[in-house]
Amino acid sequence: MKLIKETCEGDRFFGFLLIKELHRKVATNGSEYFDIVLADASGIISAKLWDISEEQKATFSIKKIVKVDGIVSLYRQQKQLQIQRIRLSLPEDDIEIQTLIQKADVSREELWQELRMIIEEIQSPTLQKLVKTVLMVKETREALTTIPAGMKMHHSYYAGLLEHVVTLMQSALQLFPIYPQLNKDLIIATCLLHDIGKTIELSDPIAPEYTTEGELIGHIVLGIELINDAAKEAGISSRDEELLALKHCILSHHGDVDLGYGSAISGKLPEAIFFHYLDQLDAKLNAMKLSFKGNSEEWVYSPMLRRKIRNLNKE
Amino acid sequence: MKLIKETCEGDRFFGFLLIKELHRKVATNGSEYFDIVLADASGIISAKLWDISEEQKATFSIKKIVKVDGIVSLYRQQKQLQIQRIRLSLPEDDIEIQTLIQKADVSREELWQELRMIIEEIQSPTLQKLVKTVLMVKETREALTTIPAGMKMHHSYYAGLLEHVVTLMQSALQLFPIYPQLNKDLIIATCLLHDIGKTIELSDPIAPEYTTEGELIGHIVLGIELINDAAKEAGISSRDEELLALKHCILSHHGDVDLGYGSAISGKLPEAIFFHYLDQLDAKLNAMKLSFKGNSEEWVYSPMLRRKIRNLNKE
Amino acid sequence: MKLIKETCEGDRFFGFLLIKELHRKVATNGSEYFDIVLADASGIISAKLWDISEEQKATFSIKKIVKVDGIVSLYRQQKQLQIQRIRLSLPEDDIEIQTLIQKADVSREELWQELRMIIEEIQSPTLQKLVKTVLMVKETREALTTIPAGMKMHHSYYAGLLEHVVTLMQSALQLFPIYPQLNKDLIIATCLLHDIGKTIELSDPIAPEYTTEGELIGHIVLGIELINDAAKEAGISSRDEELLALKHCILSHHGDVDLGYGSAISGKLPEAIFFHYLDQLDAKLNAMKLSFKGNSEEWVYSPMLRRKIRNLNKE
Amino acid sequence: MKLIKETCEGDRFFGFLLIKELHRKVATNGSEYFDIVLADASGIISAKLWDISEEQKATFSIKKIVKVDGIVSLYRQQKQLQIQRIRLSLPEDDIEIQTLIQKADVSREELWQELRMIIEEIQSPTLQKLVKTVLMVKETREALTTIPAGMKMHHSYYAGLLEHVVTLMQSALQLFPIYPQLNKDLIIATCLLHDIGKTIELSDPIAPEYTTEGELIGHIVLGIELINDAAKEAGISSRDEELLALKHCILSHHGDVDLGYGSAISGKLPEAIFFHYLDQLDAKLNAMKLSFKGNSEEWVYSPMLRRKIRNLNKE
Amino acid sequence: MKLIKETCEGDRFFGFLLIKELHRKVATNGSEYFDIVLADASGIISAKLWDISEEQKATFSIKKIVKVDGIVSLYRQQKQLQIQRIRLSLPEDDIEIQTLIQKADVSREELWQELRMIIEEIQSPTLQKLVKTVLMVKETREALTTIPAGMKMHHSYYAGLLEHVVTLMQSALQLFPIYPQLNKDLIIATCLLHDIGKTIELSDPIAPEYTTEGELIGHIVLGIELINDAAKEAGISSRDEELLALKHCILSHHGDVDLGYGSAISGKLPEAIFFHYLDQLDAKLNAMKLSFKGNSEEWVYSPMLRRKIRNLNKE
Amino acid sequence: MKLIKETCEGDRFFGFLLIKELHRKVATNGSEYFDIVLADASGIISAKLWDISEEQKATFSIKKIVKVDGIVSLYRQQKQLQIQRIRLSLPEDDIEIQTLIQKADVSREELWQELRMIIEEIQSPTLQKLVKTVLMVKETREALTTIPAGMKMHHSYYAGLLEHVVTLMQSALQLFPIYPQLNKDLIIATCLLHDIGKTIELSDPIAPEYTTEGELIGHIVLGIELINDAAKEAGISSRDEELLALKHCILSHHGDVDLGYGSAISGKLPEAIFFHYLDQLDAKLNAMKLSFKGNSEEWVYSPMLRRKIRNLNKE
Repeated sequence: MKLIKETCEGDRFFGFLLIKELHRKVATNGSEYFDIVLADASGIISAKLWDISEEQKATFSIKKIVKVDGIVSLYRQQKQLQIQRIRLSLPEDDIEIQTLIQKADVSREELWQELRMIIEEIQSPTLQKLVKTVLMVKETREALTTIPAGMKMHHSYYAGLLEHVVTLMQSALQLFPIYPQLNKDLIIATCLLHDIGKTIELSDPIAPEYTTEGELIGHIVLGIELINDAAKEAGISSRDEELLALKHCILSHHGDVDLGYGSAISGKLPEAIFFHYLDQLDAKLNAMKLSFKGNSEEWVYSPMLRRKIRNLNKE
Repeated sequence: MKLIKETCEGDRFFGFLLIKELHRKVATNGSEYFDIVLADASGIISAKLWDISEEQKATFSIKKIVKVDGIVSLYRQQKQLQIQRIRLSLPEDDIEIQTLIQKADVSREELWQELRMIIEEIQSPTLQKLVKTVLMVKETREALTTIPAGMKMHHSYYAGLLEHVVTLMQSALQLFPIYPQLNKDLIIATCLLHDIGKTIELSDPIAPEYTTEGELIGHIVLGIELINDAAKEAGISSRDEELLALKHCILSHHGDVDLGYGSAISGKLPEAIFFHYLDQLDAKLNAMKLSFKGNSEEWVYSPMLRRKIRNLNKE
Repeated sequence: MKLIKETCEGDRFFGFLLIKELHRKVATNGSEYFDIVLADASGIISAKLWDISEEQKATFSIKKIVKVDGIVSLYRQQKQLQIQRIRLSLPEDDIEIQTLIQKADVSREELWQELRMIIEEIQSPTLQKLVKTVLMVKETREALTTIPAGMKMHHSYYAGLLEHVVTLMQSALQLFPIYPQLNKDLIIATCLLHDIGKTIELSDPIAPEYTTEGELIGHIVLGIELINDAAKEAGISSRDEELLALKHCILSHHGDVDLGYGSAISGKLPEAIFFHYLDQLDAKLNAMKLSFKGNSEEWVYSPMLRRKIRNLNKE
Repeated sequence: MKLIKETCEGDRFFGFLLIKELHRKVATNGSEYFDIVLADASGIISAKLWDISEEQKATFSIKKIVKVDGIVSLYRQQKQLQIQRIRLSLPEDDIEIQTLIQKADVSREELWQELRMIIEEIQSPTLQKLVKTVLMVKETREALTTIPAGMKMHHSYYAGLLEHVVTLMQSALQLFPIYPQLNKDLIIATCLLHDIGKTIELSDPIAPEYTTEGELIGHIVLGIELINDAAKEAGISSRDEELLALKHCILSHHGDVDLGYGSAISGKLPEAIFFHYLDQLDAKLNAMKLSFKGNSEEWVYSPMLRRKIRNLNKE
Repeated sequence: MKLIKETCEGDRFFGFLLIKELHRKVATNGSEYFDIVLADASGIISAKLWDISEEQKATFSIKKIVKVDGIVSLYRQQKQLQIQRIRLSLPEDDIEIQTLIQKADVSREELWQELRMIIEEIQSPTLQKLVKTVLMVKETREALTTIPAGMKMHHSYYAGLLEHVVTLMQSALQLFPIYPQLNKDLIIATCLLHDIGKTIELSDPIAPEYTTEGELIGHIVLGIELINDAAKEAGISSRDEELLALKHCILSHHGDVDLGYGSAISGKLPEAIFFHYLDQLDAKLNAMKLSFKGNSEEWVYSPMLRRKIRNLNKE
Repeated sequence: MKLIKETCEGDRFFGFLLIKELHRKVATNGSEYFDIVLADASGIISAKLWDISEEQKATFSIKKIVKVDGIVSLYRQQKQLQIQRIRLSLPEDDIEIQTLIQKADVSREELWQELRMIIEEIQSPTLQKLVKTVLMVKETREALTTIPAGMKMHHSYYAGLLEHVVTLMQSALQLFPIYPQLNKDLIIATCLLHDIGKTIELSDPIAPEYTTEGELIGHIVLGIELINDAAKEAGISSRDEELLALKHCILSHHGDVDLGYGSAISGKLPEAIFFHYLDQLDAKLNAMKLSFKGNSEEWVYSPMLRRKIRNLNKE
């Protein structure tokens, strides 16, 4: 059975898909239809389901699994599925939602294991305690290990944030011997916590939307609030130098304020500057990897870079 | 006795001044001297004090009052005082520091009275309680009523922040009948608290410097932290809609993020947009007023607007 | 009978509408159709009228009223009317164009009355005479009291410019006690005349288009020309200080030149700075109000701010 | 006798110079001195005149000629004259101000002759009449033929504007055969009148300063006003298509509005686009020529381009 | 027989067209179709060819000529041809590809003749030899005389680059008497070679696409490489001053680096500055001419200027 | 003996220094003096040498060593040496220039050894051969191992470029395991050659100035030329895919073209994006390290970041 990413224009697709978005609309002739986004582990495809029945209206919803038969077409460079048959999955189909979710390349369990091991390498009692206290909150821990790092641009898949965080930690560890002047603990803690506010900004790991807090406060300051709460819980003074430095690295991680990318302060510590570039590097490389994935073209459009990029190493 | 603002090039100045900045330096000939900034209630003037004695080295310091005799000169458009005689003030001089500090036009006591009356007009129990809880902290209250609103640009004098806050509240109250769609309580609270983080960002009302927290976190996020602490103290939920809206207005009050002026989020509430323009209007008008003050020229350079502005209403 | 703003996808609309735009086009099959924009007092909706008859070609035109029966659909977030029956209104329908035009909240007569009263408060004989002379020209007066303040962004409805002007005057009057340093007459005159060039820039109050003068000269300089003509008529010297100051406030009211929003000169008078922010504040708040109007969603897209904004006070 | 431009650091200068700027100041020791700018036909040099006598205070002023003996020094890359002897010129010195003014390469008379001949080539009766009517005003004609095109950047010398205008006309005439689609009369008139507002913006050809009208209205709109006055005088309708097109070319000649260089409207006619680039080309080439003039260095700093430029063709 | 440019919505088109682009796609119903772009000497029109036969799949391709019968429609402001009958041209049709290609106004042969004559006017042996050596390479010469100057913006037709180059040379020759300080040979050589890298950047004169070298290196540096090769061939030292100056003019011809238009260095020679503005002028005027061509509207949208422009001289 | 960096205002400095810049000037009183920049291994200090003798004029020059006795003073935040005694070093002083040059932290020999070892790890025969051929040119190899990476911003000391290159290679090697999708050989070659054009752009390792080629062509394109020459020498085709990719990474290493930092093309390969961020990271961290060096202040101004930065790890 082909995956969505592997289909070409004109291919037939037959198999199970997850409903990721669903909007009920009215056609020109007055009849109702669904505008939906379907997904498997390789990517997404949009579709329209015409002349929907009352039963479909009542039972179809986000995160349900459907069995679909259809033809892949292209509209404005985007794949669309022309549905010919569709039904909700049944218990006897024995299909699990986990198999239809796009995920990080490494398993979530391994990533989590790696993250916990790296935390143990933090020498500073203050920063280690702080990090652990943040992760003691079950909702935070669960969200951190399941949500994507973003809606669209990079690491935009199940547990994408966790993969991003662990990759940054690993990169940082690799570079520390080369830049011995850097405070390692501060950087490890920044890697782990820089996007922690996204656990509140995004509503759900599988069909994420922005929450009200996300829209009004933004993930950078939401992260600072989570850290402040943990610091209080852990008995760390709000004037603690390490705490201040950590918050500075997070508040400045989108680059200089005057670039207008949303930093609340411009980086004034080597660790803040170091982290900013490492974060950019990982985000951009992941975005390019996603654009190339399953794509056999030599030149591929990258939404993050807003230009065509070249797949030099394609098989 | 002339005030500093009233002196012209070549004038003799004779009287008491406050030492606002003091740096000890070494001259070409190896002897030491002071590079100082002196102030009275009308403004500041820089000076060099040559060949300083051991006693002067031991006793001169910031916030001390001196009696000076000198000639005013101009260097690169800035007034400098050529000191001919100088000594520390003596008890019998009977000169008080309050008389040498540049202040708001209205007395601090009246401004405070006005502010407290306006707080009583807040209808929302949540916002009124929040505001009062913030002001219950003595350090915050004292700083709010004494520090300038900034180092240089606008309201850069004793109790300048208080004057800025009260003026904004009064302006908002005046405009509410015209924009009835606005949430009045939210705006009043934003006026009061938008720069509350400056109570931590600046070190001192009379000779202010940026604190470490100010440099690393910035006054916008420092303000959010003060508000979060007060909300907890007052038993207001961190998910409270009014609290979120207030924080949004503060986080966005420097304008759209992509302008690069330091907002952490772009304004998404009418109240946030309203406040941003009111704040800009008051800051710019105050800056222009300060540039005109005591200045009899028709065209005056405004550091905030970075161009010459015209004093149309000069006497 | 529902208004356009109140309809949802799938609703039937039955009633009278005004033809605001009409373009005759040829369909794929060679037959001709109309691409039209219909309006009532609550908003606009686009539609296509297929297989038009010779009679329809001859009689349908802009500003005609039609009786329509159709279904509301959505295409790319925009409402479209699927017309099932349509005919021109008849005398016996007894429907007046005034009832189908989107208008300011306050009546045009009241606004005009208010504007005339405020003009009387101008103390400067020069500025009062100038303002009155501008309004003595019938075409100017009629346009000022009927045209929108713009095509799309804010106050984009019948007599929107008048409402904008009167609101600005009222706001300014409210703030004068707080900023006594300002020249009140100069600001009142600026409020009234800042967009007076739009009376030439826009062709018509009900179905406005840009005129050739509007495209080639722009409303700011067209306004200056109207003022110069009036000044000559009123015997005011072209070197008059008040006239110069008024023109300066108008030429700079789009903000600093280097922002690239079309000011011909950067503001150098406190009155110019004050007016710029007041104008921005009113324009943005009106734009947000229009976006919220009749909209029951919590988050609404604002074309002027180019982001989603939140309807905090929705009923 | 060497010219200022020809002097090097350490050279003695002995001869007549014009006082272009003069500011009376007070030295550290309380004595008064002059801060002055002196000029000859080749350039300017600044100087300080110490311990000035009462007679000097009473008689030295702008546009007076002095006989000077001094040594040239360098301070922050600028030449300064260390004055050893100075006196006002006497009748018997027989020195004329004309010999000390920096001028265009071609004589003002020839330029004026050329300009008048080119005006005769305008075919459009409307545009020819308009241009002639503008030049019928004696003040305008005198200023146009004497003032510099700007304070500092390009053609910043006596009759610089006239030279700039005539060069533009000549360039345009040369290019017309290559771009036959262009309206020649419109472009000739634009060349002549594009900076005509500078005749009001600048106060004086020899020691120019910005006038109040210049600061508040700017030369672009001042030019439009002069043209409107002439059109009325000449009986040309304010709706005349050629008049509108001419005003459009002038209002847009600083380039697209969103670049923030001060155009009131973006160019929408080929003639406007053509003129904009021709004007830039002439201004930049003249600025570079001025930087090279009398300079034997291979690399010279250009204030207009804000970088070092190379003198490839130096002798 | 009408040309494409002359057709209006609803017109029938009957005649020969060139296939400029061809993409094979699958329709919703599973059948295949062609998405094609057709061209004649006046412009292009897109079309869809439904239910294509096996023979069509096998024989239709880029640069083939077809005989078409169809109706012109409009979709999103673009003309589309609703094909009713289509077949490949036959030998007996006696139609030549040259008649279906959009070309420069002057014949390619005349342009080439002109270019060769101007090369002879180069006085510098080095530059003349260099230019001739570049043109000695057959592929370069053929591409230079056939490719468009760009894909879309200006001179986007057969031999457009040649026309652009010759026009620039003619303009430069016309302006040399006015700017005698310029190095004529250097500018002539720059005119000829400034876009020479496009001979590698674009794949084909009739159906051009970007090559891999074009995407990865860009035409500016590709041009430098061609020049370096020619210089070696001609025995010109890589340190030759004229060669350096020529390369500088090419590397800087997109304007100052900090504008972000792709110059590798900012212009530091008068010749570089001169050429930049001349090139802009010619490109913009040609783009406007193309927008006006065959267009009878008063206002036309210009893709290069991104606004509506006015056809003042339309017949 | 103290190093320059270790001196404070008022300290006496006594020892050997290298003359890095020397300008002969004329004082106000007509006597000549030297304006010089002196250096030891820790940094630079400026000085003036008054009343210079004929012998000094004849013998003092750049790269000479002097023995100096003086007092350190501060002028506009810069250290200046008030020279009391000075003489050229004598053979018997037995002082070597190497001891007075600021250098990389690691020895040049070790860096070179490291670089050669890493070159051996390049698997691609093409890229390894290319790199080795570039380094076979003696001038290139010598310059690469001695010049600074820049005049001021980062790695601005003897062999700074070599240190920068080797650090980038080491960083890249460390990150390869984390980003296995990257072409390692391409990145190693880019690290080595990205700034190779600086070997021509800068004139000298000890007292570097920009060469004519540097000013007119810039180091990016100069590097491409060196690589092209080497490719020809090594028999690598100009169409070789690896060569193209390498040149692309170099041409794009200053970031996206529209940022205006001088890239000739925007990055379209993951390797180009990766390298850009790695290069920025190393440059900025080195710049901050240089600012901190020998500085005991908590906050230090960073010329590269244009703000104060914080020395968290100061001893």
